[in-house]
Amino acid sequence: MNIIDGGVTAPKGFKAAGVACGIKKNNRKDLAIVCSEDTAVASGVFTTNVVKGHSLQVSMEHIKNGFARAIVINSGNANACVGETGYKDAKEMTELTAELLQCDAQDVLVNATGVIGTKLNMPSIRSGIRSAVNALSSQGGSDAEEAIMTTDLMPKEIAVDIELQGETVRIGGIAKGSGMIHPNMATMIGILTTDANISRSLLDKALKQCVKKTFNRVSVDGDTSVCDSVFVLANGFADNDAIVKEDYEYSKFVDAMMFVCTYLAKLMAKDGEGATKLIEIQVDGAGDESDAYKVVSTVAKSPLVKTAIFGEDANWGRIFTAVGYSGASFDPNLTDIYIGDILVCRNGAAANFDEAAAKELLKKKEIIIKINLKKGNVSDRIWTCDFSYDYVKINGSYRS
Amino acid sequence: MNIIDGGVTAPKGFKAAGVACGIKKNNRKDLAIVCSEDTAVASGVFTTNVVKGHSLQVSMEHIKNGFARAIVINSGNANACVGETGYKDAKEMTELTAELLQCDAQDVLVNATGVIGTKLNMPSIRSGIRSAVNALSSQGGSDAEEAIMTTDLMPKEIAVDIELQGETVRIGGIAKGSGMIHPNMATMIGILTTDANISRSLLDKALKQCVKKTFNRVSVDGDTSVCDSVFVLANGFADNDAIVKEDYEYSKFVDAMMFVCTYLAKLMAKDGEGATKLIEIQVDGAGDESDAYKVVSTVAKSPLVKTAIFGEDANWGRIFTAVGYSGASFDPNLTDIYIGDILVCRNGAAANFDEAAAKELLKKKEIIIKINLKKGNVSDRIWTCDFSYDYVKINGSYRS
Repeated sequence: MNIIDGGVTAPKGFKAAGVACGIKKNNRKDLAIVCSEDTAVASGVFTTNVVKGHSLQVSMEHIKNGFARAIVINSGNANACVGETGYKDAKEMTELTAELLQCDAQDVLVNATGVIGTKLNMPSIRSGIRSAVNALSSQGGSDAEEAIMTTDLMPKEIAVDIELQGETVRIGGIAKGSGMIHPNMATMIGILTTDANISRSLLDKALKQCVKKTFNRVSVDGDTSVCDSVFVLANGFADNDAIVKEDYEYSKFVDAMMFVCTYLAKLMAKDGEGATKLIEIQVDGAGDESDAYKVVSTVAKSPLVKTAIFGEDANWGRIFTAVGYSGASFDPNLTDIYIGDILVCRNGAAANFDEAAAKELLKKKEIIIKINLKKGNVSDRIWTCDFSYDYVKINGSYRS
Repeated sequence: MNIIDGGVTAPKGFKAAGVACGIKKNNRKDLAIVCSEDTAVASGVFTTNVVKGHSLQVSMEHIKNGFARAIVINSGNANACVGETGYKDAKEMTELTAELLQCDAQDVLVNATGVIGTKLNMPSIRSGIRSAVNALSSQGGSDAEEAIMTTDLMPKEIAVDIELQGETVRIGGIAKGSGMIHPNMATMIGILTTDANISRSLLDKALKQCVKKTFNRVSVDGDTSVCDSVFVLANGFADNDAIVKEDYEYSKFVDAMMFVCTYLAKLMAKDGEGATKLIEIQVDGAGDESDAYKVVSTVAKSPLVKTAIFGEDANWGRIFTAVGYSGASFDPNLTDIYIGDILVCRNGAAANFDEAAAKELLKKKEIIIKINLKKGNVSDRIWTCDFSYDYVKINGSYRS
C-alpha cells in the first residue's frame, strides 16, 4: 500500500471542486462537489441523532437505490431545523446539480454543515453549484476539502493505492470534524472515493466495518450533531476483477479503507476545537465489547480528564473515577492505569511513579492512556483531544 | 416555615467545628466535625461510582445500624485509591473521634474530599480531630462548612424551622460541591441535621425523596466522583410527637427538608467550577420519567450548550441537538424550546424571535431553558452552570 496525492480525486474517474458562494464570511470556500464520471455504487453511514438535518434526510432517501454520481455539500449553514423549506432547498440542490451533470437527481447526494436553524440563502447556493460544476477537475480534491471545513484548522485528506490481482486500485478520502464530535457520528462529514470494482453489499459492509473502528472512535466533546455522515462512492474504473465475496482481495481493500479512515479520524481528534493534544484512550482486559466501549468513551468524554491533560497533570484519579462511573463491570482492586508507559495506578491504588517523568511525557503532543481491567480479553480504543481555553472561546462565540 | 441562622448547628443538640490541620495549603480549614449531643437516627445516600473512596466505604458500613453521633470530614485529600492504608486510616479517624466523644466508633461517620491517590497525613489528621473536638460549639456550623470546601467559592449553608403540632422543629444543612458534579451524587458532600423526632425508616424515605429531586438534579461537568454522599442526623431534641407514618406532619417535614436541599443544590450549580451563570433546564410533555430525565441531563451535560450560554449566545440549535441524542423518545417536529420566556424553536423549526432581546436575557446570572416535547405529561428539571475559561483553568492545574 502506498500513500499517494490527490485525496478524493486520486481514484480514476473522479472530479471535484470547491468554491466560495458567500455563505461563509471573508470569501472562504463553502460549496463542494465530488463526482464520478459514471454512476458509482454508493453507501453511507448517518448520524443516530433523532433530529436530522434536512439535507441529510434527502441523502438518506437518495442513497437507498445503492447508486450515486455526485455529492454536493455546503458549509456555514447546516440546513437543519428550519421547517419544510429546508427539505425543499436540499431537494433543489440535488436537482440543479443533476441537471448540470446530466444525471438523475436521485443519484446526487447532499449534505450541509454549520449553524442550525437558519434557512439557506438559495440564490448564493445556486450560483455556487453552477461555479462548482464549471470548476470540476481531477485535481480538485483539496478544494473540495477546503470547502467543507468549518472550524477545522487543518485540512484532512489522504489517498492510497493497493494492487489487487495486478490492477492498481485507489481509495481517497476527505473529512471535516472539529466540534460536536462523538460516536456515533458527529458534526463530521467524510467522503471516500474509490475506483475499485466492488459489489454494493461488500462496499457497504467494508464502510460499516471501517467507520465503527475509526470515525465512531473519535470524541471531541461528546455531542453528536444532526448532519453527520460518511459516504463512499466506488466507480469501478480500476478495472479489477469485481470484489464479490469476502476473499483476500476484499480484506486487502478493507485494510486500505481502514488506513484511510484511521488517518482521517485521528486528524479529526487532533484538530478538535481548541485541541492542543491528541489523546488515545486504550482499554485491555474488558469482559466484553460493550464494557470496553463504555470505558474508553466515558474517559474520552470526561471534561476533568481532558482539562487535566491540557494542564499536563498526571491526575490519574480522574481517569479511574471516569472508569468507575462508565457503567462497565469490573473490579476496581484489579485495575491498572498507564499514562504512556508509566504505570500510575496498580491494582486500583497509586503506584510509585516519577511525577517529573510523567510531566515530561504529558508535554508531548500525542498522549496514550492505557487502562487494564484484567477481567476478560476484549480491547478497544478511542481518540480524543484535550479541553482548552480555546474550546470555550470557539464555542462561546460560534455564531458571531 | 422560616429561614433561620446557624446551618447544621441551628437544630437543638447539635455542635460543630472546623479547623485547619495542614492538609490544605495556606492554613485553610480542612477538618470538620458535626455531632449530636446524643445518638441520632441517621441515613445516607452514596455515590453510584463503582470506585469508592475508603472513608466513604467505612461510613457505608457504620450507617447500617441506623444510628450516628458524629461525622468527621477532611477536605484536601479524598482518601481514595491508596490501597489498604486508606481503609485503615478512615477507621482510625472514626475510632479517635469516638474516643474523644466517648461513643462507639460505629456511631461515627467519616468522609473525605480532595485529590485522589495520595495517602492521608495521619499525624495532621489526628491533631486536627483533637482540635476540632475541643472547638465543638453550637455556633460552629459555618466553621464546619468552611472546612469541607475545596474549590467552592461560596459557603453553602442554610437552616429553617417549622411547627409540628405546637413544637418547633429545625432542619439545617451544609454542602460542598464545585467540580465533578453530576447525578447520581458527585464530588459533593451534604450534611443535614434536624432535631425532629422521626423514625429511621421515614427519615430515610424523606432523604431519598429530597436527594432525588435536588442533589441528583445538579450537573456541573457530568463527572461523578468517588466520595459523594449526603448524610442526615435526626436527634429528636425538638420533642415533637414522633413522626412514624406518612401523615401531614411528615409531609410538612419533607417540604422543609426539600427546601433546604433545593437551596443547597442550586447553590452548588451556581458555584460550579468556573461558573458565571446558574442554568435551570426544564422539560415538559415527556412521555415518561426516564425520558424526561434523559432530556434534562443530556442538555445539562453538553459542553456546546454550556459554552454557548457562557458566550451569551442564543444558539438553540445546540439545545435541540442534545435533546436529539439524549435517547429520549419524541417527535422532533413537535418540539418547542424557550430561552427564558422567549420561544426560540417552535415545532422543531426556528421561531421568529428577537435576537437582541434573547442576548439581553442571556446576560442575566440565572437562565431558564424550557423544552416542551408535547408527547406526554411528565416534567423534570435540573440545575447546571455555564462552561467558562475558568473551568479549564481550575481543572488544568487542580493538583498544583
